[in-house]
Amino acid sequence: MGKNRLEAFSDGVIAIIITIMVLELKVPHSPDFQALLPLWPVFMSYVLSFIYVGIYWNNHHHLIHAVQEVSGGVLWANLHLLFWLSLIPFVTAWMGENHFETGPTAAYGFVLFMCSVAYLLLVRELIANHPKNAKLAEAIGSDRKGKLSCVLYLCGVALSWFGAWLGFLVYAAVAIMWLIPDRRIEKKIIEQEEDEQTPGRP
Amino acid sequence: MGKNRLEAFSDGVIAIIITIMVLELKVPHSPDFQALLPLWPVFMSYVLSFIYVGIYWNNHHHLIHAVQEVSGGVLWANLHLLFWLSLIPFVTAWMGENHFETGPTAAYGFVLFMCSVAYLLLVRELIANHPKNAKLAEAIGSDRKGKLSCVLYLCGVALSWFGAWLGFLVYAAVAIMWLIPDRRIEKKIIEQEEDEQTPGRP
Amino acid sequence: MGKNRLEAFSDGVIAIIITIMVLELKVPHSPDFQALLPLWPVFMSYVLSFIYVGIYWNNHHHLIHAVQEVSGGVLWANLHLLFWLSLIPFVTAWMGENHFETGPTAAYGFVLFMCSVAYLLLVRELIANHPKNAKLAEAIGSDRKGKLSCVLYLCGVALSWFGAWLGFLVYAAVAIMWLIPDRRIEKKIIEQEEDEQTPGRP
Amino acid sequence: MGKNRLEAFSDGVIAIIITIMVLELKVPHSPDFQALLPLWPVFMSYVLSFIYVGIYWNNHHHLIHAVQEVSGGVLWANLHLLFWLSLIPFVTAWMGENHFETGPTAAYGFVLFMCSVAYLLLVRELIANHPKNAKLAEAIGSDRKGKLSCVLYLCGVALSWFGAWLGFLVYAAVAIMWLIPDRRIEKKIIEQEEDEQTPGRP
Repeated sequence: MGKNRLEAFSDGVIAIIITIMVLELKVPHSPDFQALLPLWPVFMSYVLSFIYVGIYWNNHHHLIHAVQEVSGGVLWANLHLLFWLSLIPFVTAWMGENHFETGPTAAYGFVLFMCSVAYLLLVRELIANHPKNAKLAEAIGSDRKGKLSCVLYLCGVALSWFGAWLGFLVYAAVAIMWLIPDRRIEKKIIEQEEDEQTPGRP
Repeated sequence: MGKNRLEAFSDGVIAIIITIMVLELKVPHSPDFQALLPLWPVFMSYVLSFIYVGIYWNNHHHLIHAVQEVSGGVLWANLHLLFWLSLIPFVTAWMGENHFETGPTAAYGFVLFMCSVAYLLLVRELIANHPKNAKLAEAIGSDRKGKLSCVLYLCGVALSWFGAWLGFLVYAAVAIMWLIPDRRIEKKIIEQEEDEQTPGRP
Repeated sequence: MGKNRLEAFSDGVIAIIITIMVLELKVPHSPDFQALLPLWPVFMSYVLSFIYVGIYWNNHHHLIHAVQEVSGGVLWANLHLLFWLSLIPFVTAWMGENHFETGPTAAYGFVLFMCSVAYLLLVRELIANHPKNAKLAEAIGSDRKGKLSCVLYLCGVALSWFGAWLGFLVYAAVAIMWLIPDRRIEKKIIEQEEDEQTPGRP
Repeated sequence: MGKNRLEAFSDGVIAIIITIMVLELKVPHSPDFQALLPLWPVFMSYVLSFIYVGIYWNNHHHLIHAVQEVSGGVLWANLHLLFWLSLIPFVTAWMGENHFETGPTAAYGFVLFMCSVAYLLLVRELIANHPKNAKLAEAIGSDRKGKLSCVLYLCGVALSWFGAWLGFLVYAAVAIMWLIPDRRIEKKIIEQEEDEQTPGRP
């Protein structure tokens, strides 16, 4: 089964998720600049979530790029990931509206944790469907970053009880870790493509 | 006529439907976890509808994948399906807000029923346009699942008067029935593709 | 310049327009079926606008399908059409909320009129860019339906002052006129494709 | 790495941005035409922002069209541009609701300024990744229009303190400057394509 519609549908859902978050930035009724000040926690939550959804789109792009076909199981693992991503606008708005208190910050971390678990499940399903695609398995490797993120999200959730800002800082640190490009994967995929072009499509 | 834009447009509409439902999860004004408790019926409705829209996308994907061309009639049958799917966010929100009372639960079942009828009409239109595509007709077969779903939705609507939870359980059971992958169709389509690749595109 | 992104962007915008209209169907707070009754003018407006946006998507699909390339002028004529289409949700909501009174019904007709003018401009720009594409010009022909629609919309606007339902009936009649498929265009395009396939892409 | 998903995702986000702005046109509760009058500043803001987002989509289309591949850096530069574009609905609504007062009009200009900076960064990243694509560099040239726009946006922001309408006029003038098609770039790209078709894809 082709992967084009999986990509198109995922692109659509992720594009909507990343864009509807801005609707939480409620327009102030006053024209003064001071009216923008109470919005800063909402704005900071928006920036962090925009970066996170951007990272997921980016990684999803790389991941699906490495395969040629998707099975029914992959379609559902992908929908499962989109489900948890779709909750990001909700926890973003809750965290922003309550100025980073314990409950919303912990809930935000929990949703990030579930997104990363769903991503790992998608990766596993893809590997199970492409056992011969050695390059994909190799490129993903031990997926230390993914597993480390899972642990760090849980740390962030726990730290939210000692101070919500601690949780926020952990989530921001994980985002920065992902923003540093993983040249290794890009290189692997390029190599794979060059290999594949020689013998034609399998 | 090509099917690319039909797929792209359907993907767009379904992606929006599946995502705007999350807007009904109104952000609580309190930062306490208890503030999330009143949201559980809304959340459960959201999960069920997410799965249903996912199932429709999935089946739509498989269905359109099996044909090469679409006629004007198919375009309209497809829009008819999208119309009923677009009402899912409305009944989902109504059911969630009223904690699964009779009226909204019955309305939810009615919209699911109309979606499945619209899907059957789309299937019929596709078969009428591809009489030679024996594999498509064969793969869809008697379409027992689709017809059974129609009946079960009506049962769910009727049961809502005896207890809205009964209706909800029926809808959830139908969703689970669809989540179990239909390996038979996948196999048929793969076979068809292999056959088609031999003599080139008809 | 390729037409793929023009199609993708238009599909995205039209998909959003057709879907956000459902947000105007405000969820009733009561679980009684009677609570749905006051929604019927909103629902009827929704159905009519869904059909209209569907017609525009359908015609847009056929129109762009007939050309291979688009110029800067076409991009802007297309955006102009999308602008007027984007106002349909606004007038739909206004008409629905006010139970088809004169003002909103006339405004609805005015936006439909501007959409059809924008569509005619897009057709004209496409013909100007493809003077050699005789089949396109021939297939569009005198475009009686489009010109008749323009006049009928204006009649509907005028009739709204005598009774808003008269206006609504005119708009519904135009929609039905468009729903009857224009086999003539489909045939022309199919012939064109067959011709083009012989000598390769020009 | 292919550019298809970058285009699809950007199209999705820009399509949503351009469409959700219309949600700020709040439906009046009265059916009188006079009820539309207070909406004219919101409507004018909508028209200007629609044109701006259209210009960005148009230029983005041309820019990405000129390259074959995108790197990780380009993906992030593109997301950065989409982030600032996503703030346009917010400042549009703020400017419209406050009838072009100083604060919102200056904020609108600031977001336009950041969008144009983000666009320049995307252009720079693309050139850095395609040093051999001389035609791209040549076609973009000194990019006088882009740099002039940056300066004019800042002028508009400054002029907002003397009268918000002055700022609005500057932004409208910049939009008109961009609407005049840049035949030069179109020509260059067409030439490039003709050249590339001869020796095959590099």
